[in-house]
Amino acid sequence: MNPAIDSAPASVSALIDRLVRPIEDWPLPGVTFRDITPLLANPDALRLVVNALVDAARASGPIDAVLGIEARGFIFAPAIAVELNAGFVPVRKSGKLPSSSFTTSYDLEYGSAELEMHTDALKHGDRVLVVDDVLATGGTMQAAADLVRQAGAQVAGNLVLIEIQALAGQERLQPVGCSALRTY
Amino acid sequence: MNPAIDSAPASVSALIDRLVRPIEDWPLPGVTFRDITPLLANPDALRLVVNALVDAARASGPIDAVLGIEARGFIFAPAIAVELNAGFVPVRKSGKLPSSSFTTSYDLEYGSAELEMHTDALKHGDRVLVVDDVLATGGTMQAAADLVRQAGAQVAGNLVLIEIQALAGQERLQPVGCSALRTY
Repeated sequence: MNPAIDSAPASVSALIDRLVRPIEDWPLPGVTFRDITPLLANPDALRLVVNALVDAARASGPIDAVLGIEARGFIFAPAIAVELNAGFVPVRKSGKLPSSSFTTSYDLEYGSAELEMHTDALKHGDRVLVVDDVLATGGTMQAAADLVRQAGAQVAGNLVLIEIQALAGQERLQPVGCSALRTY
Repeated sequence: MNPAIDSAPASVSALIDRLVRPIEDWPLPGVTFRDITPLLANPDALRLVVNALVDAARASGPIDAVLGIEARGFIFAPAIAVELNAGFVPVRKSGKLPSSSFTTSYDLEYGSAELEMHTDALKHGDRVLVVDDVLATGGTMQAAADLVRQAGAQVAGNLVLIEIQALAGQERLQPVGCSALRTY
């Protein structure tokens, strides 16, 4: 691995290796799901991972808003926003937001789905960090970027705990790219 | 209002009044939804509210794990857990957790739904804080308490940003009760 693109200290990578649990054939046969719940349940690991995400986020420069993608993106994005002195904006599945919203669709392995964001959530020109737990195909993060563009704001960075390299999500998120604490 | 049960400083109550947006007739006719997204998007308000929730959480004594209820409970629970040096445990809707889970059902206005928690998420005897954004009927927080009991742990406290007093959720959560930063 190229140390220049590994934004996490070795101890956090090791924590992720030890506490993120691979679940074979979930949610579909042939898929290995990375279950982060044992890591979240460990007080020291949770704190170290949140701190490492905040450190990685600072590489994106000044940030006005941190977007979290429902549901697991909500776990990290608000804690990062507090540390960056930014706001938190939820990107939600269709029909969950109560006010006027932008909508975008993205492909799933078995069809498509929609993500939404309130039209007043971002200001024109805002610099935005998009946060999720895992980068797989990059479809949901690309959809979040589309919502940011609809609002006239810009994606200054993408950030995840874990990147699944074989699914090539990194390529879909160029030129901004995506930082990850651990790549498999 | 009795100052003894208002755990938030006046400035945080005022922030909530100013930045939480009432949405009439959503999601159903006759319901006034409290939309917290304008508050979350404001960096100062987000930080002050998270700090106030942490202060309120300390009244529950030592906490081993903070439970967040999907999806809006995920927004606050991990940040609180980091400050309390506790773990974060997600309580999710049916079929979302990948490993062996406890299940409980709760009533909705139009039927019932299920919540789940991993069977290895809590240790026997753990003192648990349950966090959500809004206390309405108390059905989901009562369901979370049932999952805690199934794990042999105990609910040491319940905590929300906003309590809707007319729906009497507080009564369903006795004797532990529920702390709120603002009551309507």
